[in-house]
Amino acid sequence: MTPSSFPVVRLKPKANARAVRHGAPWVFDNELVTDRRTKALQPGSIAVLEDAERNALALVAVNPNSRIFARVLDRDMTARIDKAWLADRLTRALEMRARLYDAPFYRLIHAEADGLPGVVIDRFGDTAVIQPNAAWAELLLDELADALVDVTGVANVLKNASGRARTLEGLDEDSAVLRGAAPDAPVPVPMNGATYMADLTGGQKTGLFFDQRPNHAFAARLANGARVLDVFSHVGGFALACLAGGAAHALSVDGSEPALELARAGAQAGGMADRFETRRGDAFDMLTALGDEGAQFDVVICDPPAFAPSKQALEAGLRAYERIARLAAPLVAPGGYLGLCSCSHAADLSKFRTACTRGIGRAGRAGQIIHTGFAGPDHPLMPQLAESGYLKALFYRL
Amino acid sequence: MTPSSFPVVRLKPKANARAVRHGAPWVFDNELVTDRRTKALQPGSIAVLEDAERNALALVAVNPNSRIFARVLDRDMTARIDKAWLADRLTRALEMRARLYDAPFYRLIHAEADGLPGVVIDRFGDTAVIQPNAAWAELLLDELADALVDVTGVANVLKNASGRARTLEGLDEDSAVLRGAAPDAPVPVPMNGATYMADLTGGQKTGLFFDQRPNHAFAARLANGARVLDVFSHVGGFALACLAGGAAHALSVDGSEPALELARAGAQAGGMADRFETRRGDAFDMLTALGDEGAQFDVVICDPPAFAPSKQALEAGLRAYERIARLAAPLVAPGGYLGLCSCSHAADLSKFRTACTRGIGRAGRAGQIIHTGFAGPDHPLMPQLAESGYLKALFYRL
Repeated sequence: MTPSSFPVVRLKPKANARAVRHGAPWVFDNELVTDRRTKALQPGSIAVLEDAERNALALVAVNPNSRIFARVLDRDMTARIDKAWLADRLTRALEMRARLYDAPFYRLIHAEADGLPGVVIDRFGDTAVIQPNAAWAELLLDELADALVDVTGVANVLKNASGRARTLEGLDEDSAVLRGAAPDAPVPVPMNGATYMADLTGGQKTGLFFDQRPNHAFAARLANGARVLDVFSHVGGFALACLAGGAAHALSVDGSEPALELARAGAQAGGMADRFETRRGDAFDMLTALGDEGAQFDVVICDPPAFAPSKQALEAGLRAYERIARLAAPLVAPGGYLGLCSCSHAADLSKFRTACTRGIGRAGRAGQIIHTGFAGPDHPLMPQLAESGYLKALFYRL
Repeated sequence: MTPSSFPVVRLKPKANARAVRHGAPWVFDNELVTDRRTKALQPGSIAVLEDAERNALALVAVNPNSRIFARVLDRDMTARIDKAWLADRLTRALEMRARLYDAPFYRLIHAEADGLPGVVIDRFGDTAVIQPNAAWAELLLDELADALVDVTGVANVLKNASGRARTLEGLDEDSAVLRGAAPDAPVPVPMNGATYMADLTGGQKTGLFFDQRPNHAFAARLANGARVLDVFSHVGGFALACLAGGAAHALSVDGSEPALELARAGAQAGGMADRFETRRGDAFDMLTALGDEGAQFDVVICDPPAFAPSKQALEAGLRAYERIARLAAPLVAPGGYLGLCSCSHAADLSKFRTACTRGIGRAGRAGQIIHTGFAGPDHPLMPQLAESGYLKALFYRL
């Protein structure tokens, strides 16, 4: 199709065309002139975005079922959105990851920031997992899988349809094997000198998140000879990195037994199972119980799920972060380290830091902040979407 | 002296005693009841800080000549501020650095955050440089030097009195050798696989800053095989780290010939002088000239001096950061990397990011942010002094 044959969607006169010209990746439904014609567009189809004066701004993917009505694909109006176009974006993303990482285990595509709106691709050696969380990518999934095999040489491509974003786009929850085969066992993933076990078909609960890698690495630098407590440990993120960094002992706490089983398998694979222990249970209860026991650790890390996923949940979320800090601080030996993480979009760094500092103060402790970390470079940010910097890690010395 | 024998300084009824109880390190002159007696206190002497109800809050060091009238030394009223007390703070600070760094080259004391208000101590192997930028430390300088030798085992202790903060405290500018001897040649400093040459007696212009170490390390990860441009290079901070990281070539630009001479000596010491080049000149002029030449680099870093050192200078400073970004972006090859740094207290991360992104946009380029870095952990922050997080580094991929 040539641009002239694409349907047109047009900004309202008061909408911010300048934002799109300056790189904004999204246009919301209330910014567009919508009528029966635009509402009937097939979800995921390509259209030309025009400003109110009918100047073409960008090629966009539209979805009348989503609040994000249009996602900018290319500001070059002559672009063809096809396999070669996808391969070009993938190649560009791969160049950066290949430069930064010794082994092919990373987030390859981080959605808008890597030029593929709504698409997340994680790479685990010769297996890639696509989360096509926008309708346009679902329509082009075949081309995307082909391009991915061509560019990276992976043997297996899986589709993970469990993302909550898919519901907002009106997409199904059917995960699938797109190319090759699904691994029949957890995949060993080398990071920071440790080995993690990723269950790529068991869903997010037991998969693997690459975003904390630099924060794991920082914790590991603190861990030599240390007793480590890793709360909300999932498959052992901080604990295994600390063990690889020379920790004397690490205790992982999580609510999910399958996740802890993978953590133990990772410790086994790394030859450090003798220094590793897990306990299943509610994190708040476990922190309270450890406090009652008078347990002391040299390094304590808490990496909870998003307590403030939305603006509405912000106040309650900040109270939960404060409570975590208040319960964790007494477990830190004098001169020890406390790492507190948030993956909440709504809680910005300043608010999160205030909540953590207050919680530590309420525990009768005080400290200095020695490190503030974010997601790793395989999770780039669009400068225009500051809120996409969801992950924060604060390390205090108490 | 016992606490009861110390003079008393008292908060005004409306002053924020709670802030001190929660860890605020400073009390300003307008928050205190001042009279002839308090104004006659010897700068640097110890006093008891009380709230308006005469409850003792902390032992403080006072300076009637400074806007920061009182600096909290200890909230334990029974503390004795002597050599042992200093040694205790130094020991605590040393433990963290020894855990984090393989070699004894780091900022050992970062003022308030390390419990020694106004005092900065940098360690270069067996030589330590003290900046006693508060009157109390000047009075206790002998005890501090002794404690430093005892705790760290350094042979040489220098006093650097060039800090601007000393003027605000009414202190002299007389640098001195306190223990041992001043090194008679620049000291080789190992960082990130490179060797830097630090001239410890030539003053700040040719000394060494440890704060950028983690950002140097990040740049080095991008640099394998790359052509690198390091603007405001000082003694070669980013350039030498990138060469150690495998850069094909690095060009350092700085206004100071002595600094560039040390950079060349560092490259020589690291066996990479054949890949290193320097140019002396004004950074804005050099960026413009390189643009006119059509020069292209794979990695460009700009680490200018503080353009926005105060709130008054903020707007002009942000324009200067934007201009740097606008001039530097065209020098970055497609798919290359641009690192932009600010050491301005007044320009917070969000404002600095906006200025940089706008400058890049004005150059007709666009990019993703792949890394946001701050000063290293040997430059800890007090949670109560968010503004002390002066250093920001943003890495864009264009």
